[in-house]
Amino acid sequence: MQLGLSVSDSDVSSFTPLVVLELADDTKAEAITWLLNRIRGKQQNGGAELLVDQLLFPAQDGQKSNQNVFVVGSTLQRLLKGAEDVGLFKEFQDGTMRGFTYANRESFKDFYGDGEGFLSDAECQYIIKHELDTLRAKNEEHVPGYPKVKLYPGKSVVRRLQSKGVLVQYFPLHNKEDLKRLSFSWYKKIKLSFQPLDDIRHYFGEGLALYFGFLEYFTFALVPMAFIGIPYYLFDWEDYDKYVLFAVFNLVWSTVFLEVWKRCSATLAYGWGTLSHKKAFEEPRAGFHGALGFNPITGREEPVYPSSKRQLRIYLVSVPFVLLCLYLSFYVMMVYFDMENWAISIYNENPNLATGILLFVPSIIYAVVIEIMNLLYRYAAEFLTNWENHRLESSFQNHLVLKVLVFNFVNCFASLFYIAFVMQDMVLLRQSLATLLITSQILNQVMEAFLPYWLQRRRNKKVHKRMRRMMGDKELPLLEQVQLETEMNTYLGTFDDYLEQFLLFGYVSLFSCVYPLAAVLVVLNNITEVYSDAFKMCHVFKRPFSEPAANIGVWQLAFETMSIISVVTNCALIGLSSQVKAYFPESETQMILIVVAIEHVLLAFKFILAFVIPDVPKHIQVKLAKLEFDSLEALKKRVSTNFPFLNNESRRKYYFVDKICLFA
Amino acid sequence: MQLGLSVSDSDVSSFTPLVVLELADDTKAEAITWLLNRIRGKQQNGGAELLVDQLLFPAQDGQKSNQNVFVVGSTLQRLLKGAEDVGLFKEFQDGTMRGFTYANRESFKDFYGDGEGFLSDAECQYIIKHELDTLRAKNEEHVPGYPKVKLYPGKSVVRRLQSKGVLVQYFPLHNKEDLKRLSFSWYKKIKLSFQPLDDIRHYFGEGLALYFGFLEYFTFALVPMAFIGIPYYLFDWEDYDKYVLFAVFNLVWSTVFLEVWKRCSATLAYGWGTLSHKKAFEEPRAGFHGALGFNPITGREEPVYPSSKRQLRIYLVSVPFVLLCLYLSFYVMMVYFDMENWAISIYNENPNLATGILLFVPSIIYAVVIEIMNLLYRYAAEFLTNWENHRLESSFQNHLVLKVLVFNFVNCFASLFYIAFVMQDMVLLRQSLATLLITSQILNQVMEAFLPYWLQRRRNKKVHKRMRRMMGDKELPLLEQVQLETEMNTYLGTFDDYLEQFLLFGYVSLFSCVYPLAAVLVVLNNITEVYSDAFKMCHVFKRPFSEPAANIGVWQLAFETMSIISVVTNCALIGLSSQVKAYFPESETQMILIVVAIEHVLLAFKFILAFVIPDVPKHIQVKLAKLEFDSLEALKKRVSTNFPFLNNESRRKYYFVDKICLFA
Repeated sequence: MQLGLSVSDSDVSSFTPLVVLELADDTKAEAITWLLNRIRGKQQNGGAELLVDQLLFPAQDGQKSNQNVFVVGSTLQRLLKGAEDVGLFKEFQDGTMRGFTYANRESFKDFYGDGEGFLSDAECQYIIKHELDTLRAKNEEHVPGYPKVKLYPGKSVVRRLQSKGVLVQYFPLHNKEDLKRLSFSWYKKIKLSFQPLDDIRHYFGEGLALYFGFLEYFTFALVPMAFIGIPYYLFDWEDYDKYVLFAVFNLVWSTVFLEVWKRCSATLAYGWGTLSHKKAFEEPRAGFHGALGFNPITGREEPVYPSSKRQLRIYLVSVPFVLLCLYLSFYVMMVYFDMENWAISIYNENPNLATGILLFVPSIIYAVVIEIMNLLYRYAAEFLTNWENHRLESSFQNHLVLKVLVFNFVNCFASLFYIAFVMQDMVLLRQSLATLLITSQILNQVMEAFLPYWLQRRRNKKVHKRMRRMMGDKELPLLEQVQLETEMNTYLGTFDDYLEQFLLFGYVSLFSCVYPLAAVLVVLNNITEVYSDAFKMCHVFKRPFSEPAANIGVWQLAFETMSIISVVTNCALIGLSSQVKAYFPESETQMILIVVAIEHVLLAFKFILAFVIPDVPKHIQVKLAKLEFDSLEALKKRVSTNFPFLNNESRRKYYFVDKICLFA
Repeated sequence: MQLGLSVSDSDVSSFTPLVVLELADDTKAEAITWLLNRIRGKQQNGGAELLVDQLLFPAQDGQKSNQNVFVVGSTLQRLLKGAEDVGLFKEFQDGTMRGFTYANRESFKDFYGDGEGFLSDAECQYIIKHELDTLRAKNEEHVPGYPKVKLYPGKSVVRRLQSKGVLVQYFPLHNKEDLKRLSFSWYKKIKLSFQPLDDIRHYFGEGLALYFGFLEYFTFALVPMAFIGIPYYLFDWEDYDKYVLFAVFNLVWSTVFLEVWKRCSATLAYGWGTLSHKKAFEEPRAGFHGALGFNPITGREEPVYPSSKRQLRIYLVSVPFVLLCLYLSFYVMMVYFDMENWAISIYNENPNLATGILLFVPSIIYAVVIEIMNLLYRYAAEFLTNWENHRLESSFQNHLVLKVLVFNFVNCFASLFYIAFVMQDMVLLRQSLATLLITSQILNQVMEAFLPYWLQRRRNKKVHKRMRRMMGDKELPLLEQVQLETEMNTYLGTFDDYLEQFLLFGYVSLFSCVYPLAAVLVVLNNITEVYSDAFKMCHVFKRPFSEPAANIGVWQLAFETMSIISVVTNCALIGLSSQVKAYFPESETQMILIVVAIEHVLLAFKFILAFVIPDVPKHIQVKLAKLEFDSLEALKKRVSTNFPFLNNESRRKYYFVDKICLFA
């Protein structure tokens, strides 16, 4: 709540602005009035009871700025009540995490006086977003001034305005002071240290903090691997057979790594109060459409789209399309290998400079084609997933992730698999791996952070100059900040960041036994990645809304699948090594059978290990169980005779703990 | 509540007896008085508020019967309140299942007048059991009259009396009229039909009804298999190569079978109100011991045993012991094969009657040794699991099941695996399979139902005669019934029944492609099994307490593991078939690689299938989500400002549905 700049210190309004709301430039005045009234309206009348003010940018050079930009803030009391609505978990006096309630606010740790400083900025902004999102139509049939923008009772007003383009965007404002402090402790310090995860979470929310936690954990987990890799690389440069030991190490490492991460993530999420926090009933996503019907769960009127239709779209269109793309990708790969062979044969016939250069042409063409394919596929995947018309944002995201993941996996690894198992050329495999790792590393950092930063800086200077010209010497930092941030790029979520880590994990766990330096390269990459990602979050993108997250979600599944594939791959690589082949000079069949048997044992061991290691550390299990028990006892004592539904609440009681304790 | 005989129609007491409580014959009078007072005492004084009366058996022939036999009953109101305590789910007026509360009793379906007939017998008995079990010591330091039977505040009195042998047993009484009706519709009808699962659940509770539901489902699932098996058996008697198709069918069948069962079981459990019902905080089991400390969850005083110690016992003693036993079992198997070879060689040298008989000796010895080993191991497993000192009955059971399962699996299947993959003798495999299936089938039915029944009948006659002699012609059906049932064997739970089905499932899914008649035999076995199990439940054993269960628990895991093993086995059998070998005349290596590749694809397909098929049918997901939503809304409206803990309750909200909807 100590935003560096308050609207009150300029002449615009009298509260701390937290969220910016940008409506289309040509929005009808009656719609604006209606929306502002709804935002300001009392809660009992269905309003959000928030504070909102218009920002007036002086027109200049005939180039009129958008006048429909608003800042939203709130009173402290409203925020605290909102914290209860969104189900925020906070630390209680006794050190456990409990659901915050306004009535019991005094019993929470760090709640002093009227609660100033109790909620972090990110939390306040999340609460405001929630309140805006749940601003529902009453009996309006359409948005005033827009007869075509239909409404029905219970429809989220903001979502509808957004899907119809009336609301251009809304985003939280940066807090310059906090940002300065955060960026200093995060990436400006020279001495190496852990990332300030709690501060990151405070400023950007749990979802992003978990990403950075994972990035750090993954990097640390790779360090032993890298240390083992260096001597392998230095002393056995040409001895490809020594990698059997390394492959075994790989197997155990990738399993333990993921299991332990689950526990770390549970510990982090517990401390942040998101392990217990579950999202309330999810709103349909903005793009969801369907005939108006009744939601069978809430009984409210909302668009209904039969899931059978969605299933048909998925299985009859999306799945075949993905398969077709995969086939195409294989085909392109085969063409590449043909071209490569052709180039080599030409070079061998007539080795000179021109044919020497020709040797590189296929690789370059292939790399470019792959990039183009990835890009096109990404658009297609987004279009298709949108067309599948998922009701929830989460399910939309999961389907999108799955589509993109499969294609990227094939695109990145198919050629390596081909080299390893069809061509069985370990030297080439190692070369390709090194090339891929190093180029993707450099490309990523440039494309992800520095290029956008450079563009951003140019834009910033322009805006700064423009503002100066408009205002003369008047200091209006808020107006300038809003103007700057409105034009910043939107951070599209952790998707691409996780995808990058997923592919790096693939390189290391699948093939690093033939190129032990892979782990070293990934460690180096990730160290710079932390800095470039931190930098891009702080200076390149708009501040994103905080996203409560208890774990890394579908990515855990993706990494686990990759680690299963890595068991198979590593066993196959072991089977191909001449060292192992030397043990069975007369019978190849016997060797294969033994390798397959070992693979099965390792897979079984992996599953047993995953089953035996509890997902949540014991002390957190106890705390969670205690919480459940306490709430149950409280309920029993106080309302047992009043509630027909109350037993339902205890339905999943100990579900989680039960599962864990099955053999504990 | 319409027990066929009421105590009031004899001269003993004036309520419907539901549960029999047998104390040791030499129990001190003060302990009895104390216990009865506690059972009869008001709830606010920590009593159970139940009705209890002593049954007086006239002494006769100097052979004095145990005088300390009591019957427990309850008023209707007390039972209804108890139903709320145990968290019973009942059908609401709107057709959904909701947690029963006394205050809202009128809103539940089938609740008329004062609620007579609303609760089934089994439910009443379950409630009484729960109330007895949760009868807790207040500030007594020991049981009156027994200074050594220590108590501490909060300790369950009944558990302590049981573990010290003062309470010999307590069990629910049969209801002769209901039993007659049930057994008629269950197994006395001549026309084939589905089992009356709802009636079984009414009389015996959900745990047992789910077992019979599973048995029926499994049998039906085997019918197509059996139908395909018959022509295979009839027309390809000596052509072992045709089994490739059959093996593929096997693979798909075993996956789909288990996934669909999960959905059936969820549907059944929802209708019975146990899908949402979760057991309240579990009591420590009777045998659990440890230093008195504080439970970190409840904060109550109770014995505490460090889980690190338990882990040590498990990993340093139990696991090595189990491995040793497995080794022993392998060793015995190898000795058996040696003996078999030796017998064959003697027979070949000098074929006459004596050596012909000698051929059978190894098999007989092996069968006997296996039975003895199973028996000894079972005792050892129970001893060890007891010694591991698990706090909860459920975790005790899981560890016991796991131990017994692994050993039984090895004992039953090791010789078959050896024949199939080491000896590669498909004719012998088929013979052994047939022998094992048929003998185990006959043995089981005799040992499980008919032998106990015969013993039971003899005992019944004796008791009947004795009672007649004691009483003369006076009709005292209750006394006689109690006397009879007290001496009946106790049903030890569904463990052995599931184990039998598990082994049968193993025979079918692992090897039936070489002996297609296996499915037919198992179908026949299971049809008689339904009858013999039904019969034994109704007439051989004491009525068991109803056990609320939402699924078949750890057995689902066991069956799924078996089905994974069956994929591997079937692929290996396909690889061994001469038909497949004929396709790759020159390269065995290539054949093996292709079979392994197919196996991996099938395993991947299996996991994807398991992931894609939702565990709970859509319409039940919707009902569950609606219930959660309703209770949440109700809570929000009514107590949102009163409860510091309430948000915790919603913690697992949609956890289940979330998981399912990940890609839905």
